[in-house]
Amino acid sequence: MRKKSSVTLGLIQMACGEEPRANLSKALDKIKELADRGAEIIALPELFLSRYFCQEENKKFFDLAESIPGPSTEVLSKVAAEKKVVLIASLFEKKDQTYYNSAVVLDADGTVKGLYRKTHIPDDLKNYYGEKFYFTPGDLGFKSFETRYAKIGVGVCWDQWFPEGARLMALEGAEIIFYPTAIGRQVKGVPDSLNEKERNAWITIQKSHAIANGLFVASVNRVGLEDHLDFWGSSFVADPMGEVIASAGDRKEESLLVSCDLAEIDAVRQDWPFVTARRKEAYSKLVR
Amino acid sequence: MRKKSSVTLGLIQMACGEEPRANLSKALDKIKELADRGAEIIALPELFLSRYFCQEENKKFFDLAESIPGPSTEVLSKVAAEKKVVLIASLFEKKDQTYYNSAVVLDADGTVKGLYRKTHIPDDLKNYYGEKFYFTPGDLGFKSFETRYAKIGVGVCWDQWFPEGARLMALEGAEIIFYPTAIGRQVKGVPDSLNEKERNAWITIQKSHAIANGLFVASVNRVGLEDHLDFWGSSFVADPMGEVIASAGDRKEESLLVSCDLAEIDAVRQDWPFVTARRKEAYSKLVR
Repeated sequence: MRKKSSVTLGLIQMACGEEPRANLSKALDKIKELADRGAEIIALPELFLSRYFCQEENKKFFDLAESIPGPSTEVLSKVAAEKKVVLIASLFEKKDQTYYNSAVVLDADGTVKGLYRKTHIPDDLKNYYGEKFYFTPGDLGFKSFETRYAKIGVGVCWDQWFPEGARLMALEGAEIIFYPTAIGRQVKGVPDSLNEKERNAWITIQKSHAIANGLFVASVNRVGLEDHLDFWGSSFVADPMGEVIASAGDRKEESLLVSCDLAEIDAVRQDWPFVTARRKEAYSKLVR
Repeated sequence: MRKKSSVTLGLIQMACGEEPRANLSKALDKIKELADRGAEIIALPELFLSRYFCQEENKKFFDLAESIPGPSTEVLSKVAAEKKVVLIASLFEKKDQTYYNSAVVLDADGTVKGLYRKTHIPDDLKNYYGEKFYFTPGDLGFKSFETRYAKIGVGVCWDQWFPEGARLMALEGAEIIFYPTAIGRQVKGVPDSLNEKERNAWITIQKSHAIANGLFVASVNRVGLEDHLDFWGSSFVADPMGEVIASAGDRKEESLLVSCDLAEIDAVRQDWPFVTARRKEAYSKLVR
């Protein structure tokens, strides 16, 4: 039985440069700083080791992929164990001859607790999200990982638009869903009003997962200008009624330290049993 | 082929009194007024013919039920045909010995286009939504109805909290989802802040259905104090990116007249193909 119901999340909203080693080093510094401030589960943005290379289709970027476990998890595992923190790290994975947009969960003793591979892959090069060129859709399904501090689910970026993913993680027992993300404004050809409308929709859909499933949602985005995209940050945590309890700005690096009382999950679900009151016999067409 | 892509919705946010005949008469007046102002599809709140009797469990209220088609649809069909409007009317249905919380869709020629029976029934008497005492869960599934002016889906109140329902209607081709609703603040025992948080969540979850499915959502609520509940109105229409394009206040009767350009659906879905990019082979646990 867990000793306490509160858990402290750390969200690292960071800008990512050309050099993977520099990005890793920056991430490690921010992890240590957040851990020292009391963070217990720390999440990094999608593919934080590199620029968001999916803005173009270029074979050279396949060289960025690595195995899991592998060189990055080795370094991250060490800091997880040293600081006794759970880490969620989005990595470009190569497994045999196949490439995935993956997220690894490292437990607070540094062990690999589990792996998730992005299910929904955007095929949208015209808007600079040309991920189908690089990534095979995930084959591991949506999961929940029982870490030292909480049961957590992990979706990656585009997954956040699909209520099915959040629901599946909730059904697996997730108390907190993390979405490492890389999403931003288009710097040319899209009016500011549309970019802002998209940012609002991105917040709304993720808040809705918290509401529909009575759990916490933590979304962590990169920030800063890279080629055609100006990543909008705006990382946030929503409580089980969908209220944003912490949020970062849209223009600069920022780390969020957010205390979540997991007892709120039971309290909310006793009034709003949307996970247990589902009528799955009426849903068969969802999978046909 | 449809002649035009725009359709004008009419939402009747009304207070409902003790007397069904008076409620029907009021509704007819409001329907005619909206039709004369150009409304083509008009929706009424959940169970608008009576007070929201599910605040208590009392057998006498079964007497309110009627058949569909039946006395109310007869009157409503006439006005639908006369004014050439599609009507969405939530009625307490008795079919053989079974009672449903239903919504009937009347086409603009007055014919019964289809019927939906509320799928998700709240069993929450402590919060004054004791519907399980009255209603059998719907047996017709989530549908889309091809009316003269648009393909529409209809969910009823509590259905709005379940993303599965909205998704199923979208998969059936709905361009607009209507949610006739009866939801409000508890007048005793719940702090204002919690009531307001619930109202915000109610708006957010419905906006999210518009985003996840790239379609219009129209939510029409009753308003006014009835026993333990102060129905909060706040009826609104969201566009396919989840932006609220029209909304009513939370304290008084109000009719909304809202023009929707259905061409926005294709435009949004070409950038955000969340309905077609689903990976249903990964969703099997949703129905297990």
